[in-house]
Amino acid sequence: MKNATIPYKIYLEEREMPTAWYNLRADMKTKPAPLLNPGTGKPCTAEELEHVFCADLVKQELDNDTPYFEIPEEIRSFYKMYRPSPLVRAYCLEEKLQTPAKIYYKFEGNNTSGSHKLNSASAQAYYAKKQGLVGVTTETGAGQWGTALSMACSYFGLDCKVFMVKVSYEQKPFRREVMRTYGAEVTPSPSLTTNVGKQILKEHPGTTGSLGCAISEAVEVATSTPGYRYVLGSVLNQVLLHQSIIGLETKAALDKYGVKPDIIIGCAGGGSNLGGLIAPFMGEKLRGEADYRIIAVEPASCPSFTRGVYAYDFCDTGRVCPLAKMYTLGSSFIPSANHAGGLRFHGMSSVLSELYDEGLMEARSYIQTDVFEAAVQFARVEGILPAPESSHAIRAAIDEALKCKETGEEKTIVFGLTGTGYFDLKAYEQFNDKTMTDTIPTDEDLKAGFACLPKIPQ
Amino acid sequence: MKNATIPYKIYLEEREMPTAWYNLRADMKTKPAPLLNPGTGKPCTAEELEHVFCADLVKQELDNDTPYFEIPEEIRSFYKMYRPSPLVRAYCLEEKLQTPAKIYYKFEGNNTSGSHKLNSASAQAYYAKKQGLVGVTTETGAGQWGTALSMACSYFGLDCKVFMVKVSYEQKPFRREVMRTYGAEVTPSPSLTTNVGKQILKEHPGTTGSLGCAISEAVEVATSTPGYRYVLGSVLNQVLLHQSIIGLETKAALDKYGVKPDIIIGCAGGGSNLGGLIAPFMGEKLRGEADYRIIAVEPASCPSFTRGVYAYDFCDTGRVCPLAKMYTLGSSFIPSANHAGGLRFHGMSSVLSELYDEGLMEARSYIQTDVFEAAVQFARVEGILPAPESSHAIRAAIDEALKCKETGEEKTIVFGLTGTGYFDLKAYEQFNDKTMTDTIPTDEDLKAGFACLPKIPQ
Repeated sequence: MKNATIPYKIYLEEREMPTAWYNLRADMKTKPAPLLNPGTGKPCTAEELEHVFCADLVKQELDNDTPYFEIPEEIRSFYKMYRPSPLVRAYCLEEKLQTPAKIYYKFEGNNTSGSHKLNSASAQAYYAKKQGLVGVTTETGAGQWGTALSMACSYFGLDCKVFMVKVSYEQKPFRREVMRTYGAEVTPSPSLTTNVGKQILKEHPGTTGSLGCAISEAVEVATSTPGYRYVLGSVLNQVLLHQSIIGLETKAALDKYGVKPDIIIGCAGGGSNLGGLIAPFMGEKLRGEADYRIIAVEPASCPSFTRGVYAYDFCDTGRVCPLAKMYTLGSSFIPSANHAGGLRFHGMSSVLSELYDEGLMEARSYIQTDVFEAAVQFARVEGILPAPESSHAIRAAIDEALKCKETGEEKTIVFGLTGTGYFDLKAYEQFNDKTMTDTIPTDEDLKAGFACLPKIPQ
Repeated sequence: MKNATIPYKIYLEEREMPTAWYNLRADMKTKPAPLLNPGTGKPCTAEELEHVFCADLVKQELDNDTPYFEIPEEIRSFYKMYRPSPLVRAYCLEEKLQTPAKIYYKFEGNNTSGSHKLNSASAQAYYAKKQGLVGVTTETGAGQWGTALSMACSYFGLDCKVFMVKVSYEQKPFRREVMRTYGAEVTPSPSLTTNVGKQILKEHPGTTGSLGCAISEAVEVATSTPGYRYVLGSVLNQVLLHQSIIGLETKAALDKYGVKPDIIIGCAGGGSNLGGLIAPFMGEKLRGEADYRIIAVEPASCPSFTRGVYAYDFCDTGRVCPLAKMYTLGSSFIPSANHAGGLRFHGMSSVLSELYDEGLMEARSYIQTDVFEAAVQFARVEGILPAPESSHAIRAAIDEALKCKETGEEKTIVFGLTGTGYFDLKAYEQFNDKTMTDTIPTDEDLKAGFACLPKIPQ
């Protein structure tokens, strides 16, 4: 099919869907640093992790060597409900920008959860069910992960308890309602249902919650309720493994038409989407088979890569989780209100952090008004109303395409369009009303965050 | 490809997309009754209609003989942004129901407008632009049509003024915001910007508006503003023509796998989706080449087919539009609050009304709690949160599949899944909270509506 006219949307056929996830760690010369037990400073053992996570997922978490993990038949069946997802040639955007660049985006929003999160939610729910568990707990901020997990649990017949950051619970009642429709129990966090929640409410009576607090509550319930485990939608190695389906499909679709990208762009919060999208391309790069420019895009209000430090830190504000080595702003760092809730995380996947530290990828940040300007421009010509998170990648893709316009280079740009913005219309309203503001942390803000980084017991 | 395993989702390739719309009227022995000028009682002439509608669309409206209209290249390019839409084999639903029936649905919700409405919005915007117009006006209730038109106008570079029923404007701020994001001007109706709006507000100061009133305002602005025309998202012959793309793609996808449906089901408000879905199948039926059971599904709260009369009536409450012969509850009939806003229209397409009157299709109605029960059941196994409108078709499809379970028949059922319910979560909330109620018009309510049917001048 090389040299064939490239359609607007490239859909792989079902039989062309990847049958195994790709474990990028297997090709990394320097492996990502292990999770540490914050009490002992020693790497977490499988046994320790199995108190919190499902056994099969712990295996995937700790395995830095096996290059491929077969996708179980049940998960593949689930994937067929909404995958393969389209790789779209952005002809209309190219035309609008009058750029010689060729722009493609992998669209992960064509499912009710509205994002790529379903790729890992289904896998985690499946393994929990396989282990004979009763249910799982999790936290959700913007609500995409909670929605995805609710859908997956409903499908596999598993109870699902979601701690939703209180401010989101109140501001996004529709997200909450989707979760309830899929049978999940949604609790605004902090709540009086957990010890950590009670403690936080005692110390901060009026708090509207944070992702870090919700994680702490979800972990407490998972570890104290028989038959329950905790699941997480980003950051972890296992999540990046599951999300490799995005990159594998993207590569298969491009290969089918003989297209080789020059630049690959993804937004980065905890790293699930970016890690998934770039996996097979980065693998080629690590093996010396190809070279690509890879760009992580983050909000200027939460700039872990571009202004953070590479250090061991807690994944949660409540400091109950293991320590991960990552680019971080400090687990006490509270990003200013930014509508890309999915990118408001102080840290970053250890895998991506290591790759970035080795100079194998770039990073940049944008203020949100610039991001929404790109979002609206994209929506008007490509017909998809993008999620604020995804719009960070759109902004960078447009900027790279405009550079090509200046230089006349016909570069091929691929970016990840992780989801839709149907539940983010308050943000669009602010942008349309021109009342959206931008806040960037000062150097002092960052220093305060770094000062709280944990000391590792020796 | 006959006898090949049928995938979860059948995507036609871009080159397999229909290049012409099919005009079902060409195969009807008894043509649908013409629109009448309410002043003279005579059929509307092209000249009269061109004051309100674009010239090319008037041609399509009045042409009962040409079987195919070529889809202009520009519209086909627009279609490629979100078409071909998938025909999904509902394997998971079949499994859940334990039915021997084979269930397929044509999913039109994978675009930002969230429904099939974009198929006609893009066509109408294109012809308006081609005619050199400045902009178009329309009304919207639930907001799907207004959103679709905003997207199409933004793409073709046309101004778009939407009169949104006031109660929806207030209850669905997110729908309004999507329209604004696409550059539309959205006015709550009734408004003080039109004479008819002022008149209505004077007579009913506290009114929250109605579709009929919004139509009247949109028509007034279109006919009194240079360079403007009015566009409508359902009921009209031209709309059914554009929507035939749904049925043509469905048939092409089924033919590819050698599948012949037994039963075809669609929800029916004004008839745009149902008329589009069934077009090529009904064509075969009219030509004696095949037989199908075709079922229209409507809300029990607004039962035009099942409890209405076949008569000439106004399409709008304000009585400024031409008269159409249709199954109607009377233009003064106000359906009780029902969450399927797109089905709350007192009348029905003239084409479908004639076919129903000739016994070529069936109709049934459901109360909304039964509809939402089906919606949630569907969402949990098929992964798509359906629009309340579409869920009427789901209810009927499930009921037919359960009948097959009783009889052991392996019937093939195809239904139209017109859209997603992401902007209808207030309704899901009521259903989840068990506070949703059902109201069915009494015989007295219906009599009052029939009593107001217009007299045709002789």
